[in-house]
Amino acid sequence: MSLRDLLTSMLAEVEGAFAVMLMGYDCIAIDEVQQGEAGFDVQTMAVEYGTVIKEIRRTIELVGAGAMEEIVISTTGSRMIIRVLNDEFFAAFVLAKDGNLGKARYQLRMRALQLVESVS
Amino acid sequence: MSLRDLLTSMLAEVEGAFAVMLMGYDCIAIDEVQQGEAGFDVQTMAVEYGTVIKEIRRTIELVGAGAMEEIVISTTGSRMIIRVLNDEFFAAFVLAKDGNLGKARYQLRMRALQLVESVS
Repeated sequence: MSLRDLLTSMLAEVEGAFAVMLMGYDCIAIDEVQQGEAGFDVQTMAVEYGTVIKEIRRTIELVGAGAMEEIVISTTGSRMIIRVLNDEFFAAFVLAKDGNLGKARYQLRMRALQLVESVS
Repeated sequence: MSLRDLLTSMLAEVEGAFAVMLMGYDCIAIDEVQQGEAGFDVQTMAVEYGTVIKEIRRTIELVGAGAMEEIVISTTGSRMIIRVLNDEFFAAFVLAKDGNLGKARYQLRMRALQLVESVS
């Protein structure tokens, strides 16, 4: 399955999801698929978060708190779940506030290997 | 109730919690209470995260995704839940991987006003 097809099928599985994306730590989106209207620039947010995620990883290593796995950021209007795939990539869902976070988490876990393989 | 007493009672309510703290955005812990052995420097982690949280708030405002409410960071060995209280303070629990995240979230929500009042 191509990366685009994979992301499209992941997005279709999660109620209330605005976007799913595969990102590099250089803050460049490898690919992303969107649906519906988030009301804000999903890609800009993801790119900005790339920098933040690098910082969080550095902190976790600094204090010896294990390896980073996942971050969930909740705002008044949306949620974003970010999952580390390996040293190069992370994947993320952007959801409506009442979107299905559990299913997004499950998709990110289950498809982690496929996502990495689709770009190697 | 003093801030120390409040934090102590919050910590006692949450199974698998290593620490609870009230922090300023200047990355200084107003107060914190610890129990058990996290295996890493909880306070250093919280201080480092302070910078990251400022960055995430800035990003959320930049893209117009509402106001930041909560961040959950999961590593291979621990979880941290951070809740924004107002423009000056945030509060956070550090938990074991199998700690009760739901109860920590509930405590942070329920005690938000008390926490803010205890330092004003």
